[in-house]
Amino acid sequence: MRLTTIRTGAATRAVKLDGDRLVDLGESDLGIFLAHEDWQRRAEAVSADDATTYPLEGADFAPVVPQPSKVICVGHNYTNHIKEMGRELPSYPTLFPKFADSLIGANDDIVRPDETEAFDWEVELVIVIGKQVRRADDAQAEAAIAGFTVMNDVSARDWQFRTIEWTQGKIWDSTTPVGPFLVTPDEVGGVRPALEVTTTVDGEVMQRDDTGTLLFDPITLVKYISTITRLNPGDMIATGTPAGVGHARDPKVYLLGGETVVTAISGLGACTNKVVKE
Amino acid sequence: MRLTTIRTGAATRAVKLDGDRLVDLGESDLGIFLAHEDWQRRAEAVSADDATTYPLEGADFAPVVPQPSKVICVGHNYTNHIKEMGRELPSYPTLFPKFADSLIGANDDIVRPDETEAFDWEVELVIVIGKQVRRADDAQAEAAIAGFTVMNDVSARDWQFRTIEWTQGKIWDSTTPVGPFLVTPDEVGGVRPALEVTTTVDGEVMQRDDTGTLLFDPITLVKYISTITRLNPGDMIATGTPAGVGHARDPKVYLLGGETVVTAISGLGACTNKVVKE
Repeated sequence: MRLTTIRTGAATRAVKLDGDRLVDLGESDLGIFLAHEDWQRRAEAVSADDATTYPLEGADFAPVVPQPSKVICVGHNYTNHIKEMGRELPSYPTLFPKFADSLIGANDDIVRPDETEAFDWEVELVIVIGKQVRRADDAQAEAAIAGFTVMNDVSARDWQFRTIEWTQGKIWDSTTPVGPFLVTPDEVGGVRPALEVTTTVDGEVMQRDDTGTLLFDPITLVKYISTITRLNPGDMIATGTPAGVGHARDPKVYLLGGETVVTAISGLGACTNKVVKE
Repeated sequence: MRLTTIRTGAATRAVKLDGDRLVDLGESDLGIFLAHEDWQRRAEAVSADDATTYPLEGADFAPVVPQPSKVICVGHNYTNHIKEMGRELPSYPTLFPKFADSLIGANDDIVRPDETEAFDWEVELVIVIGKQVRRADDAQAEAAIAGFTVMNDVSARDWQFRTIEWTQGKIWDSTTPVGPFLVTPDEVGGVRPALEVTTTVDGEVMQRDDTGTLLFDPITLVKYISTITRLNPGDMIATGTPAGVGHARDPKVYLLGGETVVTAISGLGACTNKVVKE
C-alpha cells in the first residue's frame, strides 16, 4: 500500500493510492490515521467505490506525516559518505533532530534562506513508525515500521558547522521535503530494503548508492532509538545519506536558487523540488 | 502571573496561581492556552470567584507545557561551565533538542534508565514562547517571551558522548522535569532576569550561578533561533547550565537512584525530584 497526506484547499486529508485515484482514509492526515491501532486493516478495507477520491494527477502533497512528534536523523550511515567526510566507521548511530516545522511536501518549492551560503542536499530513506514502541526487540521493531518514504535532508552547512552540534544546520523552517508516499514494507522487499537512492541536481547525478549498504539497518535503528525514547505513530527516522553531498565535493557545490533537485529511491518514488530564492 | 498545567485525574488543566488556589483557565493545557493571541488578557481576567479552582497544596504538576512543538536547548552559555568543560567562549549558541516526550512534571520521580551509568543534572532557566515568531527583532523577541520556568536538563553523559552529537544523551523518555510555573517577565525583573540558579543533590549544593551572567541572553536567543525556525506558543528554549555538573567533577558524580535533586531559580521556584531506579 501507498499512503500519504494531501492538501485539499485549506485542509489536508490522509489518502491511499488506488490506481490513478487517491482514496480518502477518513482522517485529516496520515499521522492521525496511523494512530489507529488497526490502521493497516482500515487502509486495506477502504475502497474507491465507497469513499471520496481525488485524482493522483495534480495532487498537492503535504509532508507525508505533517506533524510527527519527533523526526530523528542518523548522521553517518553509508560507508562511502562516512569516508568522504573523513571519518572512521562508527560503533553507534549518530543522531540529530528535525522538528515538524522543518518539513515540506514532496513537490513543494525549497525556499533557500538568505542567511545561508552553503545550502546542500542529502537523499535519505525514511522509516515511518506505525505503532508506539519503546525498547523494541527485533520482532517489535519490525512490527513498528509502517513503511518507508523519501526525504531530502536539506542542510545549511555553514550553520551546521558553526558549533560542535549540527542541530542548527538541520532544523531550518520548511526546507525538508518528505514523501510522496509511505510505502509499506511488503512492496519493497521487507523491513531491510535494498533500494537505489539517488540525488540529481538539474539532471546531473550527485548521489547514488543502495540502502542495502546501510551500516545501521532499519531494525537496528528502531531498536537503538526506542531504547532512548518511545517512538509514536507517524514519527520518522531518516537513515542517513550516501556520498555525493555538495559540501564534500571539490570544489564544493551549493544550492543557490533556480535548481531542480530530485531525491529518489527506487520503489518509493521521488521528491522533486525547485529551489527558490527568498 | 504564574501559570502552569496540572493533572486532574486522567486529564490536565491550564491554571493560574491565585494565592493558595489554582484557577482554571478554560483549556486542557498551558500550550493550548498560550495559543490564544489574547492569552495574557484572558489570564488576567480569570478570577477564582467565577472559575473552577484547585488547591495549590498537593497539586500534581504536569510539564508546564506538556506538548511543545519544539524544545531547543543551549549548550555552552555560562562562562564558568564553559571553562569547566575545557572549552573556549563560543561565537554562536550551541543548540541541541529535546522532544515533548522527554518532559516530566516539576515534582515527578526521575526514573533512571538502566542503560546509562552516567546520569547527570543540569539546572536551566527556560524561556517559554507566548507568540509565534520568525526572524524576530529585539521588540518582537521581547513580545514573544511569555515567561520563564525551571528545567533540570537531565543527561545521560555516556550516551551524550558516544558520538559527536549530543542528541542521544539528551532525549531520554520522561527524564526532564520542567516547571512548576511559567512566571511572566514582570515578576522577575524583565526579559533579561538576573536570578540565582542552584542545584542541590540530597541537600548538597552542586551548582550555583546567576542568569545575569548568561553569554547569550533570552532576547539574543529568541532572535537567533527564530532566524532558523518559527517558534510557536508553548515552545521552550533552555538557556544552558552553569558549572557544577556531576560529569565535570573530580571524581565524577552521577545519579544512581535514591537521591533527591532540587533545581531552583530564585523568583521562579524549583523542580524537586526523587531519582528512582527502573
